[in-house]
Parts: sequence; C-alpha cells; structure tokens
Amino acid sequence: MALEQGTVQIYTGNGKGKTTAALGLSLRAVGRGLKVCFFQFIKGGGPYGEQLIAEKLEPLFTIIQTGRPGWVNTKDISEDRRLAQEALAHAQELLVSGEYDLFVCDELLGATRFGLVDLEQVLELIRLKPPAVELVLTGRNADQRLIDAADLVTEMCEIKHYYRAGVSARVGIEL
Amino acid sequence: MALEQGTVQIYTGNGKGKTTAALGLSLRAVGRGLKVCFFQFIKGGGPYGEQLIAEKLEPLFTIIQTGRPGWVNTKDISEDRRLAQEALAHAQELLVSGEYDLFVCDELLGATRFGLVDLEQVLELIRLKPPAVELVLTGRNADQRLIDAADLVTEMCEIKHYYRAGVSARVGIEL
Repeated sequence: MALEQGTVQIYTGNGKGKTTAALGLSLRAVGRGLKVCFFQFIKGGGPYGEQLIAEKLEPLFTIIQTGRPGWVNTKDISEDRRLAQEALAHAQELLVSGEYDLFVCDELLGATRFGLVDLEQVLELIRLKPPAVELVLTGRNADQRLIDAADLVTEMCEIKHYYRAGVSARVGIEL
Repeated sequence: MALEQGTVQIYTGNGKGKTTAALGLSLRAVGRGLKVCFFQFIKGGGPYGEQLIAEKLEPLFTIIQTGRPGWVNTKDISEDRRLAQEALAHAQELLVSGEYDLFVCDELLGATRFGLVDLEQVLELIRLKPPAVELVLTGRNADQRLIDAADLVTEMCEIKHYYRAGVSARVGIEL
C-alpha cells in the first residue's frame, strides 16, 4: 500500500509530545502497512525506548539515530555540525529514494536552531520530497518560512510540566 | 520493569497529535518493557491503524475500543452515554488492577465534553490511579479542574491544518 498524496507536517513548540506524536504517526502507518523511516537528528545519546521497539515492527519500521552522545556542544558546534550535515545528506538520499511512505526527521528543527543545519537546507529537503511521501519534521521554534512550506503545523504548548515539580526524565516515559 | 513514580498527563487542544502522542508514548513504553493499556472512548468506528498494530506488540500492548460506530449522536446522547459509562467502569477496573504501567484513556475528554461522562467521574478516576501507574488522558477542552489535577498538560495548538486546504483524512496517517 502507498499514500496517494503525501504532505508535510511539522510538530513544534515548547511542550511535550513532538517526537512522541511522530512516533504515534509511525505506529499507525505501520499498522496500515506503510513503510516508515524515523530519522533522528542530535540524538546520539540513546538507546531510547523507540529504538528498542524497532525490531518488533520490522521490516516496516526503520529507525536511524545520528549525532554525538550527549547534548549539542553550543560553545563549539563544529563536530555536531559535521555529524548533522552527514546525517542530512543521508536523510535526503533515503527520502528521495521513495522507499518509505512516511519519513520523519525528528529534531531536524532542533539541529537547525543550533546552527547545525541551515534553514535553506530544510526548505530544499521539503522541495525534494516525492509527492507520495509524507514528511514529518519535529523540533522547537519552527521558522515562519518552514510553516509557510508545510501543509500541517501543530504547536505543542506547555501548559503545565512536571519537570518544574521536580520529576525528572523516566525510562519508559521520556527515554 | 515498573515505573517508580507514575504521573497524570493530559494532551488537549484543537491541534493534531493528541492521540498520536499517546500512541508514541505507548510505543516507547513497550520498547522499555512496560505494559500498556490503550483504552479508547467514542471510537467504535475503526479499525484504526493503531489497532492493527496491537498484535505485533503483544503481550505488552493492549488496545480496547469502545463506543458506537460513527460519531456521537449529539441530538440524543443516551446510547452514547450508556456505552461510555460502561466503558468508564471497565477502564476504572483495569486501571486500579495495577496490571498496566501506562494507562491511556484516549478521548475521555471528548466523552466528557459531549456529556457522556461527568467531569467528577474523571477526577475520581485520577484519584483512583495507583501511584506507580502513568495515566494519560486525551481530548479537546480540558477543564481547569482537570488541569489542576494533572502533573503535565500539553495543548496541541493548530497553527495550520490541511483539512482547510481540502486534504481529507487518509488511511495510514489519520486512520
């Protein structure tokens, strides 16, 4: 099965649920027999729960994790940028191959925000999307030019967060 | 494995991604070996992609769908209310059993909004949650009393939606 019409979706904002919404989309797509590539930027620090599930959903679900372990080194982004640029080239190649019906670039907007990827490169990626592929981008601070280029944009707004109440990231929920 | 500390999460708002975020949470939790119950209210019209995936994630993932086929009959809610009340009693029983680490009540807030379930009943459900269980509620228009009772609340805000551009719900993406 394949999509007749693929669109561009963006999940942005400071609230929880951006990556998880993209994961949920992937799960539903796999349930329908679509092929999914879940490509993660600046997430070399795993494994996360989402990777541990991949094998159960094979061969329809592929997850690729890129970036350094640990968070972006904002004092010197050169190594992070090198890895993100390599990752972007890889993602682009897989996207245009048309092998996947749903293509998620998780935290590509985060990589853009930190200067590891240029906004123009993300716009180019969107332009290269094959018509029948659904492309999903996640990360905070979506630029207006990206919003203009997308078909669907949802902002996750933090109304209340338990980090503020001292609950830290938990394995199985956030990780 | 089990959670040390379970919280109450709400995904609300008029934007896309509430059910899908809850699905993504479930996927991640299953990846970590947690046991998940994904209990859907007013969603008797399936099957949705999320149900079709359940068997691949068994025995850690259980999905239960309740409600009439088709949308809520807002002119006469009696049958929808009867089914939602039955469903709520069932969900409550499963929640307090402690058999599940992550318990999702998908569209319980929708059921509340339509008068099929009373706000007080949802607050009671939250009070009954065993400490180690993570409870996730989804649906539009979360009442302030629910927000007060929750630990984490994210509002999905629609910035741009392709329904407005004439793209209808697609199998594998929305369904």
